[in-house]
Amino acid sequence: MPNPTMQLYELCGASAARVFSPYCWRSRMALLHKGLDAAVVPVSFSDKDKVRVRAASGQDLVPVLVDGETAVHDSWDIAVYLESKPGNSLFGGPLGMGACKFVESWVNTTIHPLVNRCVVRDILDVIGEEDKPYFRTSREARFGTTLEDFIKDRDAYVVQLRDALKPMRVMLAKQVFIGGSQPSYADYCLFGAFMWARNVSPCQLLERDDPVYAWRERLLDVYDGYARKSEGFGW
Amino acid sequence: MPNPTMQLYELCGASAARVFSPYCWRSRMALLHKGLDAAVVPVSFSDKDKVRVRAASGQDLVPVLVDGETAVHDSWDIAVYLESKPGNSLFGGPLGMGACKFVESWVNTTIHPLVNRCVVRDILDVIGEEDKPYFRTSREARFGTTLEDFIKDRDAYVVQLRDALKPMRVMLAKQVFIGGSQPSYADYCLFGAFMWARNVSPCQLLERDDPVYAWRERLLDVYDGYARKSEGFGW
Repeated sequence: MPNPTMQLYELCGASAARVFSPYCWRSRMALLHKGLDAAVVPVSFSDKDKVRVRAASGQDLVPVLVDGETAVHDSWDIAVYLESKPGNSLFGGPLGMGACKFVESWVNTTIHPLVNRCVVRDILDVIGEEDKPYFRTSREARFGTTLEDFIKDRDAYVVQLRDALKPMRVMLAKQVFIGGSQPSYADYCLFGAFMWARNVSPCQLLERDDPVYAWRERLLDVYDGYARKSEGFGW
Repeated sequence: MPNPTMQLYELCGASAARVFSPYCWRSRMALLHKGLDAAVVPVSFSDKDKVRVRAASGQDLVPVLVDGETAVHDSWDIAVYLESKPGNSLFGGPLGMGACKFVESWVNTTIHPLVNRCVVRDILDVIGEEDKPYFRTSREARFGTTLEDFIKDRDAYVVQLRDALKPMRVMLAKQVFIGGSQPSYADYCLFGAFMWARNVSPCQLLERDDPVYAWRERLLDVYDGYARKSEGFGW
């Protein structure tokens, strides 16, 4: 895929290879799933490319997928857009898409808040100097406390996170992906949370003997190891 | 459907209309989904029909679906068996079946333990006299305490249950069933938990203004209100 005609605007750290937004990872994995390439347009928290994001999509948030004259934002809408293209299905039809929406909701409401309590401080160490004041100020206003204080009970949240993954463990006793024998968009929804964590923090959220760890390894390996090649921590 | 050729062995209370096993409800809703009828074979905790369950399926647990010479046990395997029949799909293909397995695992590991802490004592009031000693003894041995003590913090568990349903609420802002615009087997997995609670306990697990309540109402109404006609409490 030497000449991608699409671009995906992705949130990056100081290095463009350190993509860490869980939502951007959902879109990137969805593109790979469909066998589609899209050039990375790196966007940092404060950089001027926000102007381009806004120009392309009328709003500030990434991911944004630009496909010729079409710009799509919101990771779910990007997945739905990509599903209309040829290639392997991301959802497996209307019932599968419905159940994916449940999994997405479970990740957003149950998993993301716990991951956040473990890794959000570490984002400060992987973003550019020019982004640090904005990141600290905006997050501390949102959390009502310092970043350091917000993650001070990290060890307890790691335990809570592992406990919250119990449904995955029970499921993985029967099948290797949420999609069954192949990954589906539901897998990418959860995988995005772990790519966020892996690419910003040395805090090891999963033990190596956890079936969820093995599931994550499988997804790090798919599509020629695309996710594994991104800049992150080795756990 | 006047002459059902299938039988579904279902766990019942003192009345055969009080079906309350969440797993039996999954199978019953799956049958209705496929437009199939199956005669109810009521099985109580201690009754002699266990002999028939064992004779039919080689094990003691319900549900058991008997279809001519074929007997299938385990609610998941029953759903997979029914999916091979003509009619509306329960899963929507392999990816949808995979995601359903995740939802089933989430219900079993997250929702059932909380419902149990709210309603299990009340089962004693809806089963036959001959079943009560067995039920109390077996459950108290399992829980390591009396049934009354096991549910004494019920109010707190109701709050926890409502909190655990947050993914449903977020999803229901976008679609009316886990299956999207139509119910799927994933819906029946969660619905079974609420039929269990409704048919044994006056403890109102859902507030009336909860979107999950409205979702349950929709499922009480489908298939000519089959579930609503079962014997239970009016909440």
